[in-house]
Amino acid sequence: MSKKVTLADVAAKAGVAVSTASKALRNSAQVSGPTRAKVFKAAAELSFSLNERQKQSQPPSLPKSVGLVTSDLDGQFSMPILIGAESYFGVESIPVFLCNAGRDPALEQHHIDNLLAYGVKGLLMVGWRTDPRPALTSCPVPVVYANQASLDPHDCSVVTDNEDIGRLMVRHLVEGGSKKIVLIAGDPAFQSSVRRLKGEMAELDSRGLAAVRTVRYGGWNEETGRRTMIGLLDEGIDFDGVACGNDEIARGCLDILHDRHIAVPDRVSVVGVDNRSVIVGNSRPPLTSVDLNLKAIGTRAASCLADMLDGRSHQGIECVKGTLVQRASTRMPL
Amino acid sequence: MSKKVTLADVAAKAGVAVSTASKALRNSAQVSGPTRAKVFKAAAELSFSLNERQKQSQPPSLPKSVGLVTSDLDGQFSMPILIGAESYFGVESIPVFLCNAGRDPALEQHHIDNLLAYGVKGLLMVGWRTDPRPALTSCPVPVVYANQASLDPHDCSVVTDNEDIGRLMVRHLVEGGSKKIVLIAGDPAFQSSVRRLKGEMAELDSRGLAAVRTVRYGGWNEETGRRTMIGLLDEGIDFDGVACGNDEIARGCLDILHDRHIAVPDRVSVVGVDNRSVIVGNSRPPLTSVDLNLKAIGTRAASCLADMLDGRSHQGIECVKGTLVQRASTRMPL
Repeated sequence: MSKKVTLADVAAKAGVAVSTASKALRNSAQVSGPTRAKVFKAAAELSFSLNERQKQSQPPSLPKSVGLVTSDLDGQFSMPILIGAESYFGVESIPVFLCNAGRDPALEQHHIDNLLAYGVKGLLMVGWRTDPRPALTSCPVPVVYANQASLDPHDCSVVTDNEDIGRLMVRHLVEGGSKKIVLIAGDPAFQSSVRRLKGEMAELDSRGLAAVRTVRYGGWNEETGRRTMIGLLDEGIDFDGVACGNDEIARGCLDILHDRHIAVPDRVSVVGVDNRSVIVGNSRPPLTSVDLNLKAIGTRAASCLADMLDGRSHQGIECVKGTLVQRASTRMPL
Repeated sequence: MSKKVTLADVAAKAGVAVSTASKALRNSAQVSGPTRAKVFKAAAELSFSLNERQKQSQPPSLPKSVGLVTSDLDGQFSMPILIGAESYFGVESIPVFLCNAGRDPALEQHHIDNLLAYGVKGLLMVGWRTDPRPALTSCPVPVVYANQASLDPHDCSVVTDNEDIGRLMVRHLVEGGSKKIVLIAGDPAFQSSVRRLKGEMAELDSRGLAAVRTVRYGGWNEETGRRTMIGLLDEGIDFDGVACGNDEIARGCLDILHDRHIAVPDRVSVVGVDNRSVIVGNSRPPLTSVDLNLKAIGTRAASCLADMLDGRSHQGIECVKGTLVQRASTRMPL
């Protein structure tokens, strides 16, 4: 290892006085935003020891804390991830503060600046979709990306295993006796839709089966399920299982099967993804669905961040598997 | 007004040294939790000047911030309220940090302690239901209760106007030509259910009408709507409008009307409450619903809190009215 980087090195690289660098790293209001950014950038580039920097950047009286910045407008992803992270850290020891960036990069940067000014020790960045996002640049504290990976492979990301979700759905349908399976994917602009479909096809293939119809793609809504199901029935396609990209598509299918008096699950089994209670519990019949285990994503992201705070590095994308929750829309495994 | 309360008065009342009181109010880690609580309690009881206390309780380098503590597990209420509060404060000037208390009073207190230790200037307490809650005791910063009022009438609370929501629904049905209206309430353990029903009955009464059937009460779910609608139809009740306690109940009604080939809205109009996109946009037909204007509740709560931070007091319960959003499940006003 090279010699220890000092505050003087950071100040020199940033082109400011040592006292200014010190104030900047302590987030003093006496230092302007651009100067602070310059110092943080220099600190990041020199890999200025986090522990040293943290000692300086936060008044000793404040408890350790972590910031969670989300772009998820309705809390569907961020609230369970927050709850999972809190359960790992323990509210008594490390509180997690959530800020909502509303899918606006400028707002996100404002929130990050605010959280850093408050001396948070690390950041959890929570996405509302699974497609990778640009990495944060020059962030002076460890960052873990949850639900949405960073494009930088050196970052630590914890995400849903969408291919495995596709496999799980098809495996469950086949084990319940379905052999003629229709695949209905969601919005093709989402990686989750493409990956789930890929997993479904791989699982069918591994069992010597092929989909009797693959519908790629529609939207993430019930109308897609309804329109697709009407088309399948009107065309006279023979099928006994349907794997849907999400719960809304699945509920649309169920409603048309109900309209046409086709027995679920006796003649057709239907499975969705997300396990959203407002849909799975209200549909006719209640819907079998894959739970994304968002709380576990939050817990795992928090545990990676805790390791990083202790100086142990994490890199790359880690996947958390979903869990199939069976309800009345699918047959029990044979 | 009485003479100005000094730090020495607070220290005397708390039975600690002035230096200890000062450290406690600055949230120094050198002061134990119980001592800090004692000092904060004394400060609150003496109405120790907020401005003075705030000057002392936060390092001057930190930007002003506000804490939002929610008990809403899925973000349905807290995320729009957070977004509304942020839009008022402006993220650039006063960030809002959200913590999730998961309906656990001990956890709530932990979060409040953490936020105070971080020097937040005020708190927004966001409930997941509208029934009033116990007031916070001895909180050293201004508090506004949002979506759920405090039981203490001296506190400032900003909540939904549930009676007005009931009136809005019935007015809309009557203006669309409905005269034989059925009322289906939600869970009777919720004030929102009782108040909405009260508003519905008052509006009918003011128009010289009475409900052809009042169903009090079921659950907040689609099964309640389905079961109730099957009962009404099987009994041969003659009705042309249905006001439902929430969107889920309304969707249950719509599904049975669809099953029985009863035209909506030509023969029967149906209206719900919450305007939850996952329901109103997916139902057959799309559902007319009253939006609670949660963002406006967040904005108004933030504006009250901002006033209080500036020394202007707010007391009592302020109501924010909902807005009816018409879709295809109701007739246009005649």
